[in-house]
Order: sequence, then structure tokens, then C-alpha cells
Amino acid sequence: MNKVGIVSFGITKFSRDDSKIESILLKSTKNLFDNCPNLSKSDIDAVLVSTNNNSKYLSAILSEMAGIQPKLAHTIESLCNSGTNAIVSAYSYIASGLVDVVLVSGAERYDSPGQILEWDISRGEFNHPIFWASIFTKSYKREFAVSDEDLAIVSVKNHRQAQNNPNALSKKAYSLNEVLMSKKLTDDLRLLNCSRPCTGGASILLASEDFCKKFTNEPIWISGIGQKTISAGFTKNTSDYMESTRLAASSAFKMSNYSPNNIDVAEIHDAFSICEPMALESIGFAEKGKGLDLIKKLYEQNNFKINPRGGLIGSGHPLGATGIAQSIEIVEQLNGNANKRQVDNPKIGLVHNMSAAATSSTVLILKK
Amino acid sequence: MNKVGIVSFGITKFSRDDSKIESILLKSTKNLFDNCPNLSKSDIDAVLVSTNNNSKYLSAILSEMAGIQPKLAHTIESLCNSGTNAIVSAYSYIASGLVDVVLVSGAERYDSPGQILEWDISRGEFNHPIFWASIFTKSYKREFAVSDEDLAIVSVKNHRQAQNNPNALSKKAYSLNEVLMSKKLTDDLRLLNCSRPCTGGASILLASEDFCKKFTNEPIWISGIGQKTISAGFTKNTSDYMESTRLAASSAFKMSNYSPNNIDVAEIHDAFSICEPMALESIGFAEKGKGLDLIKKLYEQNNFKINPRGGLIGSGHPLGATGIAQSIEIVEQLNGNANKRQVDNPKIGLVHNMSAAATSSTVLILKK
Repeated sequence: MNKVGIVSFGITKFSRDDSKIESILLKSTKNLFDNCPNLSKSDIDAVLVSTNNNSKYLSAILSEMAGIQPKLAHTIESLCNSGTNAIVSAYSYIASGLVDVVLVSGAERYDSPGQILEWDISRGEFNHPIFWASIFTKSYKREFAVSDEDLAIVSVKNHRQAQNNPNALSKKAYSLNEVLMSKKLTDDLRLLNCSRPCTGGASILLASEDFCKKFTNEPIWISGIGQKTISAGFTKNTSDYMESTRLAASSAFKMSNYSPNNIDVAEIHDAFSICEPMALESIGFAEKGKGLDLIKKLYEQNNFKINPRGGLIGSGHPLGATGIAQSIEIVEQLNGNANKRQVDNPKIGLVHNMSAAATSSTVLILKK
Repeated sequence: MNKVGIVSFGITKFSRDDSKIESILLKSTKNLFDNCPNLSKSDIDAVLVSTNNNSKYLSAILSEMAGIQPKLAHTIESLCNSGTNAIVSAYSYIASGLVDVVLVSGAERYDSPGQILEWDISRGEFNHPIFWASIFTKSYKREFAVSDEDLAIVSVKNHRQAQNNPNALSKKAYSLNEVLMSKKLTDDLRLLNCSRPCTGGASILLASEDFCKKFTNEPIWISGIGQKTISAGFTKNTSDYMESTRLAASSAFKMSNYSPNNIDVAEIHDAFSICEPMALESIGFAEKGKGLDLIKKLYEQNNFKINPRGGLIGSGHPLGATGIAQSIEIVEQLNGNANKRQVDNPKIGLVHNMSAAATSSTVLILKK
């Protein structure tokens, strides 16, 4: 299998702007070109777009706007983990030897059709993701004797960390009390426990080992890949709420020969507060029921190795761009370019990206 | 690179039914399982859906309905060549060694949002594909002194051939005069010169060399792959109307070490009559301007090696399923199971699938 490296990236600010989907795709692509002086349009063999937008043929349209004439071009959709699905596709195109250089561009608008689970009519009118998050929260609180206050730390931490992310949607830090007093949306969830849909784009460039050299002296390598889809409806998912995450992480660690102890920095899919402790446990960073203890400890130590850019809660959640933005954060961390967000000399990082009540998960392990 | 074989397939009748997209996906998937007695649900590592439908998370939904828990699952869209894009993705997932068995399922409804080129506002209100086909036709007629009667042979041939395809949308053969007298839609195109959008599904199962043995003694191998996207707007595409097809064919022949002379049977993307001669010329089956001579000769000899199932004009065109249905036809031909459509002992077949005025093309070469 050919080695695959990440050699450039580009990103937009996450906002509530009314930009067209094509403009968002082009903006982060342009930023990617600006970040890679040796890259020319003719180097790019494939253009993969990640989005939930209903517009068609976006890969061809982005290619035309950017002056690229790729071999391969199509759109990839898997709700909130579309971005990492597209990265894994790009990986396999290169690893198989079919192509050498792939541009992956993710974009979403604040009004994305992917944010309503219209496909899951089994839950009647409760088709907003907040309802599964609410059920997860109620169940976790009961099982592990956890309070709303315990959980609120996730939001406090991630909003604080987002203050050092110039592209984040969240512009201010919140106290524990502000989270606990924010607008009540369901029995167990308040506004500041939720990530917010937003407008944003993120692009990443992958290359085969031989081609990496043209673009950078220090590519970041994709060392482990794990993916799992367990169902399309979370009601099946009773014994382990994040079984897909557990299985994806296990595959990724096996492929990379690393374990949770080796991970220096991680992006975790905190669509809602409850997702962060659950995911930390399913990946193996904490024992079952101990995720919040770890989060609290890190918060008190001002150690931001979990979600340094502020997670989805702090950064915002432009669905098709999220998995790519998470991967970019790990690349910046491993390159030592994360400025105020920089974790101390990380060598190995992890990306966790999931869809729809963790019915589908991706885990990527990246290394210097 | 691991060898990749096609080991099973399933298909639905093409119709104007009002079936739900999920039901269409499941129907051809069920047919694929019926055709492969040794296949169990747990064998399948990845589920890729090909469609232009706006519903989200369809790969996870199909997986749940079919009882599959795949690693990889996402939807792929590239308008009319979504199907072959998904097959090439499946190929690369297997060839890279990431997975061993991939289900690709394509489906579309008659009212697909992909059939209107809403992305191309550069042409004002002329956003139906018939307008580019009309311009292609006018130009080809002028350049090569071809008449409406010369072109009508494509429709006569493909409707005739569709009579032996039990899944075809077209139920009757038409005379040259009936084509020439059918409803006039533009200056240069009549109703019977056009393929019709329809409801239909097609699924295909790909496997690595080691896993092929479990499912069949005679897999069909993917021997050549070529893809090219030259633009998203056909107005750029002046010197060679089907430049993307020419480049895709050239790559596929190079990868497979075959040439047009080696091809015993081919599926050509005849979205409109004009596409068949143009594609035959761009692939290298005929010299420039001589495509219709070849079609006429084959028709008179009752040789149906080009579009044996009736092409898109005879079979119907369910966008996301078309490239997969074309590939299935070549598999059936190479397996010698095409019944009344069977070409004499074919060894090597070709699939040509394209999007939006040939701004994007895929060419696959399959062999026994």
C-alpha cells in the first residue's frame, strides 16, 4: 500500500454568513493553494467535495472555478462525518495507485438540509439531533450519577479553547453558571450544551509519498483509519451508545500499531456536551463513566489536548466541513503551527468524527 | 495493487413507478443477494450508494434495511456518471487493501433533481440537457453533412435492442419514420432521440481476488479505469465535444493494455442519439465523422455489440443507477448469460458513462 501524506490545507472562518456553497468551496481551496507555493492546478488528479448541500455536480463546478481538470471528481455525503469519509476515499485513491494528488474540499451553509434527521421517521416529530442527544444525556446521568454541572464543564472548556481559534464561530468564553443558565431546550440540554450549525469550508490536500516531496518537507502521514456504521437509527444502539466509535477506534489503533496512550492531541466530535465524555470512553482515553473526570482534570490543568480548536461546540459545526477542519487542526498541531492552541510537542494525533447519534463513526490517526 | 473482481449484481425493472428511493435501493440489493448464494451480510465491508436524490444518509439506511453493518458507508454523486464514480471508489477501496468486499447500489426516481442542470445558470433558462444535445446535434450535422434520418438510426437500433431486455423502459420497437415523426422538442431533436428519466435501481458487488473465490468461480475483472472532468460548462468544450471521453478512454486502454480493436461488446452513454456516434469516435471505435456509418453497418448486420441492452434510449436513464446497469450488462455478456442479447463469445467489454454534455466521463474495461 502506498503511504499517503497531508501536504496542504485551507480553511474559512466559521460564521452565520449567507454565502453560496460554491463560494465557500472555492474560498478554502484558494486558501489551500496560498498555503502551498509549489502546488499548481495541473498537479491535482482528483477533486472530492464533502457536503450535505442539495446542489449537484459540485466537484466539477469547484474544479472549473479553480481551474483544475481532474480525473476523478464527485461529491460524498454521510451527514456529519462526510468530511472524514471523503478523506478516507482520497486515501484509498492514492494508496491503490490510481492517482497521486487529491484535493478534498468540504463546505456547508448554516441552513444545511443535513441537520434535520428527516430520514428517521421512526421518531415521529422528534427528528432534530437534540432529541437523541437528550436521551443520551438522561441515560448517562442516571447510569453514572452525573449532574448537569458536571456536564457543563465540556461547554466551558471548549468555548474557552475556541477563544484561541481565529476561525471559531464562538466569540466568547462562558462560565459554568452561564452554561447552566442558558436557554433550556429539552429536559437535559441547554443552548450552550449544543454545537451550532454554521457556514464554513475546509480543504485538505493528500499526496502519495513520492509527490509529497514536491509540496512540503514535512508531510503529516495518515497512519490509522477506522470506520464503522452500525445502523441508521440509534434505538438499536443500547448496550454501548457509541459502539461505532469503539469499533472505528479499535480498527484505527490496530492499523497504526498505536494505542490511546500514544495520542498527544485529539479532535473529538462534541456535537453536544454528552458526546465528548462518551467518545473519550469509547476510544479508550478514559474508563467507562470516567470521561468527565478526565475532562475536568484537563480543564483545571489548562491542558487543551482534547479539542484544542474548541471542538464543534466552540468552533461551530458546518457538517460537510467538520471532519476536514478537525483533521486540519491535528495537522497544525503536529506541525507546531497552532499558535496559542499549540499542545506541547505532539507526535501523534487522533480525529474522531461521527454521524447521527453515533450510528456511524470515523477515527483517523495522524503522525509526523 | 490488489486485483478487483465483480462477483454479483442485482437490478430492478426500469419504470415510471413512484417508489421511494430507499425501496429501490433495497430491491436491487436483495436481487444481488439472491444471485449470490454464498454471500452473507457480514461479508460486506462497505456500502456505497450512487444517486442524485436529495435524501441524506442513504448508505446507512440501506445498510440497516439490508442488515449490513459496514465499515465504510457514504453516498456518491456526480450527476449521470455517479454510478461509475461509485464503482471506481469501490475499486480503490479494495485495491488499496482497506477492505475486501464492497456493495455499490445505485438508484433514482423518475423525478430526480439531477436531470435539470440547475447548476449551470450560464445558459439562462436553457437548463435542460436537451439544449446541449441540440447544439451538439446541429453542429455535428453541419460538420459532417449528416441528416436527421442518418441520426435516427441510433434510436431505431437501441429501441430494437431494448426489446430483448426484460428490464427496459421501452416496450416497443420504432421504425425510422416513427422516430422522424415523433414529437419535435427542439430544432434538431425529437422525443425518440432522447433517453427518458425513470425509476430504477442497480447494485453490484466487488471483491478482492482472495474473496472473489468465495462468491464465484468466474469473477469479471476490472482491467482498465479512465476518468476525466474537463469543465462544468460545455461551452468551453469546442474543439472536441467529447474530450473527457477521449481522455478517459485513453487512460482506460493504457491501464488495461488493450485497444478499441480488442473490445467485443460496449455500453455507450447514449443520453441522446447524437451521443452514440460522438462517443464511438472519441473512444476510438470509429474515425471522426464515421460513427454513424459504424452504427448503420452494425444495425444492418443485426450485430448488437454496441448497447446490447438498448442503451439509455431504450432502457431508460435512472441517473444514479445507469453506470451500474451498464456495468451489469457487460458482466452478463462476458458471463455468457445475456440470453437473446448475447453477443458471440465476448472476452473483453467496455463501459462508457458520462455527465452533463460530456463535461465528465468514465470508461471502464472489464474482462473475463
